[in-house]
Amino acid sequence: MQTKNAAVEPFSLEIDIESGILKNATNHLVRRASDMRGHYADGAALERLIAGENDPLHYEVFEVPVSEERGHLMYCISKLQPGRVGEECFMTKGHYHADAGTAEIYLCLRGRGFMAMKTTEGAWAAQEMSRGRMVYVPPFWAHRSINTGDEPLISFCVYPGEAGHNYGDIEQEGFPRRIYLRQGRVVIT
Amino acid sequence: MQTKNAAVEPFSLEIDIESGILKNATNHLVRRASDMRGHYADGAALERLIAGENDPLHYEVFEVPVSEERGHLMYCISKLQPGRVGEECFMTKGHYHADAGTAEIYLCLRGRGFMAMKTTEGAWAAQEMSRGRMVYVPPFWAHRSINTGDEPLISFCVYPGEAGHNYGDIEQEGFPRRIYLRQGRVVIT
Repeated sequence: MQTKNAAVEPFSLEIDIESGILKNATNHLVRRASDMRGHYADGAALERLIAGENDPLHYEVFEVPVSEERGHLMYCISKLQPGRVGEECFMTKGHYHADAGTAEIYLCLRGRGFMAMKTTEGAWAAQEMSRGRMVYVPPFWAHRSINTGDEPLISFCVYPGEAGHNYGDIEQEGFPRRIYLRQGRVVIT
Repeated sequence: MQTKNAAVEPFSLEIDIESGILKNATNHLVRRASDMRGHYADGAALERLIAGENDPLHYEVFEVPVSEERGHLMYCISKLQPGRVGEECFMTKGHYHADAGTAEIYLCLRGRGFMAMKTTEGAWAAQEMSRGRMVYVPPFWAHRSINTGDEPLISFCVYPGEAGHNYGDIEQEGFPRRIYLRQGRVVIT
């Protein structure tokens, strides 16, 4: 039996399942409103948000990286703030995996929203997210979280070590549908 | 960009994060005390348990299988009953992965216990499990859950689709240490 990638020793970490906090995270990715230019339908509304609210926090990713070698798993906590750009709900940039043929699992711990997904061939899907909802993002599906609620949307995410991130392709393509909150109702259009 | 394994469509499932129940699971693996012969130090105590308590439930695995193809992820809920065989704490059989070089993540949702791990070279490790504790089982480490508490030990588990299970090798090797509850104290020996 081979043991070539046994270099990572067993370990454990603590996640506050109620609040969705990964304790002692060593990587902390922060995206502010200004990082989201080009993603929302109403670019002027985004600029007003950046100027008027001092470039507010948009979303964060907390992780303790393991290894990008095949066979390992990576995991993180994704935390997306509530809010609207015009009437469009706050969302993450979205990405394919760099090794596109790899899946991802999101276990929602807090908040309300959707996981929107698409393929390069134009297929589109959305799954609702709420506490306890586990969303399966299959290989080859770009994916973005969208917060339709009034508290942070927080998920525990697991993906294969070799997955990597490809933000560029989906930034070019965009997602075919958007999610709005209009007079308190979720509208997917 | 290839899309050869896009056959699985996006989906979602509901997990009761408080109670640790995966709703609508389609696979339900059940191990009773009689399935655990050969695993505990005190075989006679196990036989008394089987005879005296009508072969009680030991542990269960609930899942909705996805695909064993590389790039996919599999997940399950593992539920281990509390109890002792003599003074030795109830535990799962333990396994290596059939594709040994694949990791597994356990997010404990309920209960108290340990994840015991070993390699074929004889390295051994144990990580405590309690609600919110995430244990990383690296590639090439056999792993077994052990319930030291008085309620079910329940975890949400994720592993690469190609991992598979190898119960035979660890059944031959055994784990080098055992976990007992003696006068209310956990003893690892």
